[in-house]
Amino acid sequence: MPSLEWERSHYSARPELKARLLANENPWGPSPKARLAIMETAKEGNRYQHEAAMNLRSMIAAFEGVSEDHILLAPGSSDVLEKMAIMHFMNGGNLVAADPAYMSLIKTAVAMKADWKKVRLTDSWAHDLDGMKKAVDRNTKMVYICNPNNPTGTLTPAEDIKKFCREVATNDTTVFVDEAYLEFLPDPKAQTMVPLIKEGKNVVVARTFSKVHGMAGLRIGYGVMLPEMLEKVDAIWRGNMSLCKTSLMGAMASLEDTEFQQMSIKGTAAARKQTVTGLKKLGFSPVPSHTSFMVFPIAMAGKPFLDAMFSKGVGVRAFDIFGKDYCRVSMGKPEEMDIFLTALEEVLV
Amino acid sequence: MPSLEWERSHYSARPELKARLLANENPWGPSPKARLAIMETAKEGNRYQHEAAMNLRSMIAAFEGVSEDHILLAPGSSDVLEKMAIMHFMNGGNLVAADPAYMSLIKTAVAMKADWKKVRLTDSWAHDLDGMKKAVDRNTKMVYICNPNNPTGTLTPAEDIKKFCREVATNDTTVFVDEAYLEFLPDPKAQTMVPLIKEGKNVVVARTFSKVHGMAGLRIGYGVMLPEMLEKVDAIWRGNMSLCKTSLMGAMASLEDTEFQQMSIKGTAAARKQTVTGLKKLGFSPVPSHTSFMVFPIAMAGKPFLDAMFSKGVGVRAFDIFGKDYCRVSMGKPEEMDIFLTALEEVLV
Repeated sequence: MPSLEWERSHYSARPELKARLLANENPWGPSPKARLAIMETAKEGNRYQHEAAMNLRSMIAAFEGVSEDHILLAPGSSDVLEKMAIMHFMNGGNLVAADPAYMSLIKTAVAMKADWKKVRLTDSWAHDLDGMKKAVDRNTKMVYICNPNNPTGTLTPAEDIKKFCREVATNDTTVFVDEAYLEFLPDPKAQTMVPLIKEGKNVVVARTFSKVHGMAGLRIGYGVMLPEMLEKVDAIWRGNMSLCKTSLMGAMASLEDTEFQQMSIKGTAAARKQTVTGLKKLGFSPVPSHTSFMVFPIAMAGKPFLDAMFSKGVGVRAFDIFGKDYCRVSMGKPEEMDIFLTALEEVLV
Repeated sequence: MPSLEWERSHYSARPELKARLLANENPWGPSPKARLAIMETAKEGNRYQHEAAMNLRSMIAAFEGVSEDHILLAPGSSDVLEKMAIMHFMNGGNLVAADPAYMSLIKTAVAMKADWKKVRLTDSWAHDLDGMKKAVDRNTKMVYICNPNNPTGTLTPAEDIKKFCREVATNDTTVFVDEAYLEFLPDPKAQTMVPLIKEGKNVVVARTFSKVHGMAGLRIGYGVMLPEMLEKVDAIWRGNMSLCKTSLMGAMASLEDTEFQQMSIKGTAAARKQTVTGLKKLGFSPVPSHTSFMVFPIAMAGKPFLDAMFSKGVGVRAFDIFGKDYCRVSMGKPEEMDIFLTALEEVLV
């Protein structure tokens, strides 16, 4: 787990950074309507948030086309990831998940003594669903799929995941699909796994207001799951207790602000295009991204690379994927992507 | 656990309520400085909260006189209660706690299959520390003490708890002291159990911004604990991930706004005096309170009593304590206490 020093170096606002492209934040958010709702609610912060939480839950239930007893509101989808890992691995068992994958759920599961059965992504960077299916055994409490995946930004076809869920999700094995970056796809409604939950399959879908909605620091996310799974959560944790009232009001305003969401999506797509063009011009080979970030291999070890980029005022991340060094860059405003490309050229070309 | 219907009836903002005295909220908060900090931070909600969290942790560490590796920041102290219950009772064991007590930690512990060994409060409504000490056995993972206690509002002398902790807290048995209402005592620094943690005792203290700071809906609290306990938390949960940035900034401003805190404390003391006088005049016998709420026995069953009070626009709570019905009323503004006393007279006298 991150040390204090690690936190300071990687997550601080770094006012000295000219381009903060290290945490997949949305440079345009929060929506002006969300900001106004937060400002207006500040004076009511002395009163508990339960009514605001119930109202947001109703809105999300309607948005997802399920009843309220399917929705777990959470202070960011991280909380859904952690709660599900704790619940599922309290008595051991194994977790089937891709390599590389987003690590939050996996880290909590491993801390709970779960065995992580890694299944390497395919050569086209999709989930190896056949391999994951083979890895599932009678001790598999959960399969974790992040789609589009983080840190790779790559997509596994929705139809393939649906087929996988119909075969693998049972009372004993939950399939958890993390859809944090779903809204950046051209047709999110066709890509989400929520319809499987409506069919009664033991699938949990996590969503967040951190990405398209640009509310990463305000901590609102949710899980969609079967009512019987939600009952198990409610037995351990008191509902809605970690939710901030101002953020709940902001999320409601943001959910209605489709204009802002469209602007985020278009701006992100434009940044991807600008970044791919710039990277290719410099001789890099970015992995095709469906998200608000992108990875590409670099011919330099991660740590000195990050230090060199930071020294030029650019914050990015480095990952070791299958023994090779990759840079992960978040999509920012056009001028930030220019600063990134210039720094990259100075450091690596 | 509360049903949706229960939530709606007990926790909604109830705009029709003339006096909302049911959740121990602070009618004066948040501090104007906290509100301003929240409003100013709304626009930065797109960026993660880690730097703000590190800054608040530093302030709290200085305030408590411990190093930062003793402080677990949380979205309200509920989160500290739940995390400690999950960690301690993952592999069974028993919990020694008072009856009646604040139920959050106990509910999570029991959901984790812990055995709750209840030790009845003494006739003077203090914790029966001798009885609790006798109840501790080799399977006792934790002792939970809420001081001042909720729902009774009563105090157990700090020196007695200190002695108890020195005898009972070991590597195998954590003593958890919930100090949510500590600031309403005349000398909080003399009453807190934090000095025992500095002595190296396995004590966990929980504090909150929900009460004196008037930030119940904004969800900031913290735990003070030994660094080795915090390491165990950090192994399972990713630090700072559930903390809302606007609330963190609000908490920093509120911590510095001692003028507001003093106003809260004085207003609460005045409300207690007004309420005791009013209740006695009506023939009730309130239990002496050291907090922002107060209980007194009522000659009516809880549910019809609450319904009757709600119908008059007054929200309070009802508790069954040792088989008798009690009303718990939170301290509000003077006019709210008048409305409460008038409604009470109409319902019960």
